[in-house]
Amino acid sequence: MIQRHIRSKINHRVVEHSGVLYLGGVVADDKTLDMKGQTQQVCSKIEALLTQFGSSKRKILTATIFLSDFSGKDAMNEAWLEWLAPDDLPTRTTVGVQLVKGTLVEIVVSAAK
Amino acid sequence: MIQRHIRSKINHRVVEHSGVLYLGGVVADDKTLDMKGQTQQVCSKIEALLTQFGSSKRKILTATIFLSDFSGKDAMNEAWLEWLAPDDLPTRTTVGVQLVKGTLVEIVVSAAK
Amino acid sequence: MIQRHIRSKINHRVVEHSGVLYLGGVVADDKTLDMKGQTQQVCSKIEALLTQFGSSKRKILTATIFLSDFSGKDAMNEAWLEWLAPDDLPTRTTVGVQLVKGTLVEIVVSAAK
Repeated sequence: MIQRHIRSKINHRVVEHSGVLYLGGVVADDKTLDMKGQTQQVCSKIEALLTQFGSSKRKILTATIFLSDFSGKDAMNEAWLEWLAPDDLPTRTTVGVQLVKGTLVEIVVSAAK
Repeated sequence: MIQRHIRSKINHRVVEHSGVLYLGGVVADDKTLDMKGQTQQVCSKIEALLTQFGSSKRKILTATIFLSDFSGKDAMNEAWLEWLAPDDLPTRTTVGVQLVKGTLVEIVVSAAK
Repeated sequence: MIQRHIRSKINHRVVEHSGVLYLGGVVADDKTLDMKGQTQQVCSKIEALLTQFGSSKRKILTATIFLSDFSGKDAMNEAWLEWLAPDDLPTRTTVGVQLVKGTLVEIVVSAAK
C-alpha cells in the first residue's frame, strides 16, 4: 500500500511504502540565511515531517545533500552534526548542483518508519 | 529475489526487488524537442516501462528530475502535471546538472509494483 | 530494524534496512588517478563494502554515478563494464555535478542483501 502525505502543487512531501518514508527535496523558506542557517532550517523541516508521520530523525537511512555553493560544505556539516547524534548518522552523498535562485542547500532523505 | 529487465550495453532499464521497481535515468530520444516535449517523451517512456512490468504511473513513489537547463523548470512542470493526477504525485527533487549534449531533462523514478 | 556500519565523522558508510544495503557516495582515495583509475578504485571499495556486509557486486539494484568531468564518461564506462557481468548490471543514472576538488567520479549504490 502507498500512502501519500501533504500534497503541494507539484508533489507530495512524503510518500510511505513498505515501512519506508520517502521525502522529496527540502529547502529553507528563508533565503536570506547563510549556509549553516539554511541547513538548520532544512533539518528542522525534515525532522517535523518525519515525526508527523511516525518516524524520527533517529531513523534516517540515506541522505543526499545538494549544494549550490560547494564552498559552504563545512558550514553545512556543522549544522548536520549538531542535528544528528553520531550513532544515528545515515549514509550520505553530497554534490554541487544548480538549485532555485537563493537556495544554498536541498536535502533528500528516506527513513524507516 | 532480484529481477532485471531490458538490458542495454551499460545497465538494465528496470530492476525489481521486494515489491519495488527501480528505473534508471530516462531521457528523450528526440533531442530536437524543447523542454516540454522532451519531458512528455520521458514520461511516456517511464509509463511504458512501469506498465510492462506490472506497475503504473499511479504507483510512483519518488522522482528525481535532473535538468540541464534550469530555466526550463516551468515547462517541465507543465508536462509533469498534465501527466500525473494530483492524488498520484510522488515525492520529487529537481536539480540542475550537466547531461549528455542535447538532453534537457532526465528523470529517475522508483515505483511500487 | 536499522543496522548502521562503519561510522565516519559525518556518516555511516553502510546502512541496512529491510534486506537492502544503502551505501553513501564512494570516491577514490588516490586523486592522481585518471577517470578510469578512479572508477576502478571506487568499484573496488564498493565491492569490499558489499561483501563485508553480506551482499555482493552481483546484487546491486541501483547506481547513481556523479561525474565532475562529463567528458570522462567513456573511460568510466570502461571500468564499469570490466567490473560487472552483463547479467548483473543495475539500473543507472549518470550526471555531471561539482565534486570535491580532485574527485572525478562518485558512485552511490543500493544492493540487496
